[in-house]
Parts: sequence; C-alpha cells; structure tokens
Amino acid sequence: MSLLVIGTVALDSVKTPFGEAREVLGGSAAYFATAASYFTRVRLVAVVGRDFPEEHYRFLKSREIDLSGLQILEGKTFRWRGEYGFQLNEAHTLETQLNVLETFKPVLPPSYRKAEMVFLGNIDPVLQQEVLRQVERPKLVACDTMNFWIEGRRDELKRTLQKVDIVIINDGEARELAGEANLVKAARAIRSYGPRTLIIKRGEHGVLMFNDKTIFAAPAYPLETVFDPTGAGDSFAGGFMGRLTQTGDLGETGIRQAVIFGSVMASFNVESFSLDRLRRLTRPEIDDRYREFRRLTTVEDLREI
Amino acid sequence: MSLLVIGTVALDSVKTPFGEAREVLGGSAAYFATAASYFTRVRLVAVVGRDFPEEHYRFLKSREIDLSGLQILEGKTFRWRGEYGFQLNEAHTLETQLNVLETFKPVLPPSYRKAEMVFLGNIDPVLQQEVLRQVERPKLVACDTMNFWIEGRRDELKRTLQKVDIVIINDGEARELAGEANLVKAARAIRSYGPRTLIIKRGEHGVLMFNDKTIFAAPAYPLETVFDPTGAGDSFAGGFMGRLTQTGDLGETGIRQAVIFGSVMASFNVESFSLDRLRRLTRPEIDDRYREFRRLTTVEDLREI
Repeated sequence: MSLLVIGTVALDSVKTPFGEAREVLGGSAAYFATAASYFTRVRLVAVVGRDFPEEHYRFLKSREIDLSGLQILEGKTFRWRGEYGFQLNEAHTLETQLNVLETFKPVLPPSYRKAEMVFLGNIDPVLQQEVLRQVERPKLVACDTMNFWIEGRRDELKRTLQKVDIVIINDGEARELAGEANLVKAARAIRSYGPRTLIIKRGEHGVLMFNDKTIFAAPAYPLETVFDPTGAGDSFAGGFMGRLTQTGDLGETGIRQAVIFGSVMASFNVESFSLDRLRRLTRPEIDDRYREFRRLTTVEDLREI
Repeated sequence: MSLLVIGTVALDSVKTPFGEAREVLGGSAAYFATAASYFTRVRLVAVVGRDFPEEHYRFLKSREIDLSGLQILEGKTFRWRGEYGFQLNEAHTLETQLNVLETFKPVLPPSYRKAEMVFLGNIDPVLQQEVLRQVERPKLVACDTMNFWIEGRRDELKRTLQKVDIVIINDGEARELAGEANLVKAARAIRSYGPRTLIIKRGEHGVLMFNDKTIFAAPAYPLETVFDPTGAGDSFAGGFMGRLTQTGDLGETGIRQAVIFGSVMASFNVESFSLDRLRRLTRPEIDDRYREFRRLTTVEDLREI
C-alpha cells in the first residue's frame, strides 16, 4: 500500500526551558513523513519557498520520501515561532508567517492519485478536501486539525470530517470541537460527525482511541527528559499511519499495534529539538521501545514480550 | 492472610457541580475498608466520637469489617467539608474539625497484631509509626499520605517511609515529596527514602507504578459521569491491598493485577456520593469491570479476556 500526506513544511523557531532552536526543519508534513518513513515510503504534498535550505531537501530525500508533490513557490517558506513553559504540554505561539502557504493549492502528481492511505495533516480544511478530491479510491483517510480551524473554519472542517475514517487530535481540541468537557461524551459527538474512529492524544498521559465497539488506552512512555514537544502529535500520526501502511492490517489488533508504534515515534521525537532524534533512529531502537511500551501495560507473561 | 488498616473515619460534607451531601460516611479508613471488604476481611483501627451514627456501624459490620480496633471517645467525630469544581481533580477543603482525632492514640487489639498486610492510611505519620510498632511481623506494609503531612511533618513522614514497602500517593504529592517535577525522577528519589515500590495515582489519567525493575501504567476507566471523587484514592488502595491479601501473590503479575482491581474500585467509587456506589456493589460487577479494564490496554487476543 502507499501513503500520502498533506500538511505543512516549515522553518520553526522554538524556545523551551532547556534551550532554543532557530529556523529548524518543522511543519506537520515534515514530522509526519519522517516518522512514517521508518515503516513505508511516503508521498508528500506541501509547499516551500525559494529560501528552503538545500540540506532539508537532502534529508527528506535520504528518508526516501517522495517529494514530487512538494511545490516550490516564489517567496518565503512558512515560519512558526513558539515557546513552551516548564509544563511543556502546550505551545505558546509567538509568531506565524504564512508566506507561500497563503497561495498554496495542492496538485497531486498522477503517481500519487492511487494512494490507498491518506493523512490530512494540520492545515486549512479547504486544502484537505482539495486533496481528497484528487485521490481515486483511498482505503483509509485520517486527519488532524487544530483550534485555529475549529474556531475559524468550523463548517469546512465538518465537511472534511464527513469524509474521513479516523480523526487524530489532542484532548483540548476534542473538547472544543464537541463543545463537551467529558471525553467519552465528546468522542461520541465527534464520531457522529462522520469518522468511525477517534484518537485523542493526551501528551504525557498517552492516547485514547474510541470506535464503535471499544476504547483503547495507550500510555505515554514515562520519560526522564522531555526536551521539545514540537511535532509529537505529527510523529505519532506518522508512526501510526506508517505502521498501518506497512502491515495493511486495519483490524482492531493491527490498529492498536499501530497506536503503540505512533506513541513510540512521539516518545523519541520529544527527546531533542526539531527532527534531530528522528533523524538518527534505527529500526531496532523502534522495535525495542515498542516492546518497552508493551511491558508498561502487560499484566501476565511479562517475560514473553 | 489478614489485612489491617489505620486511617480516619469521618463525617464528610461534600459539594460537587452535580450535587451536595452532608455529614455522610467518609474518611480514609472507611473508604479503604469498604473497598477491601469485597476481597478479604479487614481489621480497622480508627477513632470516632459518641455522635457517630449507629447506621454507619451497622454498615461497616455488614461488610464484615472487624471493628474491635475502632475506638469510641468522648467528643465529636472527625469532620471534613470540601468542594470540587468542574475539573473534579482536586478537592478544595473548606473546613477540617479534628475533634476526637486530636487525642487519638491507636491501640491494636491482640487479635490484630499478627496482621500480615498493613495499610497506613492518610493520617499523622506519628500514628502510622505507632501502628507499625504494635504489629509483629507484617509481610507487606503500604502507606498513603497528603500534602499536609509532607509540608508539616516531613521528618516524621520520612521515618514512616523507611519502614514501608509500597507508597501510594497522587502525582502532586509525589512531586512535592521529592521536590522534583518529572515523575520518573521523583519516583527514583522517593524510592531512595525506603519503599521499594511507588504507586502514583493520577486521577482520570490512571496509575503509574515504579519498582526497581519495571514501570507499570494502568489507565483509568473512561467514565461518562464522575459524580464525586472523594475517597477514590482510598478505594484504590482498598481494592489493591484487598486483592493482594486475597491471593497472597506478591510477585510482579500479582501486584499488577491488584493495581487494576484498585482502579476498578476507584472507578466505581466516583460514580456516587460518599460510599453509596461501593455499598451496593457485587463481586460479578467487580470482575466484569476488571475485564473491561484489561480490554482497554490489551493489544492481541482481545476476545480471550
């Protein structure tokens, strides 16, 4: 199967209590594609400006990410600047420069149109729908969003939601989207908008997945040092969708395993600034941490995992 | 094996966004003993005043709780008054009347002294140590505490901690006790004070257990309605210690199962005011919810649980 992602590629400037990074590679599609690249080949749809550094192309290509859907427009690359306090659970946005994103209109290369797995990263829901119009018959569509679109593009976002199978958002976004504080009730409301499955990311408290029959709770890995949470949600989605694409197992067990692989990728991502930790991962490291995650919740047969 | 608890028996007045209860049965030992009574016989050490209502004795006796260690002193029963906001995660104490607790000195009936399992509920650490001096050779001692003792009786609390195997506290208390925001680092510090195992209760985010080799993460049950969180931590401890006493399995698997039974009892407790939900539980309900908890985190073989 093949995996397509639309989202942002950005130059991020981030400050955390542990340090600072300026104009480093970021954006939802960059994090997603890098995380997913450890499981499958990713076709990326995004836009950058003429100023996008050559080293970042080289890096994304080194991960065998298909960049034929990456548009290069006159102007500057999208930039985001933010900081985190000691709680590290929520980014405080200091500045957003849309730049080339303002005029971006996704056009899928013909080779992308048969993609069976589609991830609509956090971007304007109008652009998310534009991508869905251009893919032929995807087997599974998942999407992310954020408070900015929930508040400012609610109707368009609801139109996107009607067409997706899985929504992957954080707990604050789920509560805001549903207008309901209790997550069980919020999940029911959001699933009534269209998606059969809702995955709620809760940062250091892990992930809750709701579908029509079951609830699945995956813990976060208890880390001693969280350096920079930027991109954790996109790394989760990349690991999740990458693993599903690799195995093709869309049953309950396959999806639960994919949730844990997503959690694994997010746990690595927060250990360094930008994509620094994801850059130098190895597949054995990923599989080792998967086993560590499984040991976190296994009750019997601890030695078998 | 037999299980002993020291703690408070109180008359609580509680206000939540969903209602109000006045002078209802509460206190750490009452919640603990009721939850544990579904698994084993509990020997209770506590104090009440002459005003303690007859119906509460009858209820505790109906749960086959041994009340020969319950002192009745001249004066009024300990009273606590508190309220919760919509977040429901932290009680706001409005009033504490110590009453008979001020002069309480625990004296264990001879039949209690051979107790193999001991739970030192949330009470003055000096009283916790007094109980430990009177038991002969317990196999396992666990304790709880709260910010009031961490701040005001730190040295005495550390003396208690040197003598216990398992500490069961919430995340805020763990951070305060260790003086460390990161829970992994806080766990290491607290375990260096004596206990080989630390169980951190995180309310709606479940439980983390740290020992010398492993970390265990148990989710909370995603509830649609949380009515009154009072006593959730003591109900957890009661289910946990009750289950351990029932099975006698103090190995890793036995302890992990007990953590889930503790979570089960806490999840029932918050569904009503005071002990109302724990009063009318049945063992099949407990076992059903245990299986539901297991399904929350099981990845393979979902149908086998």
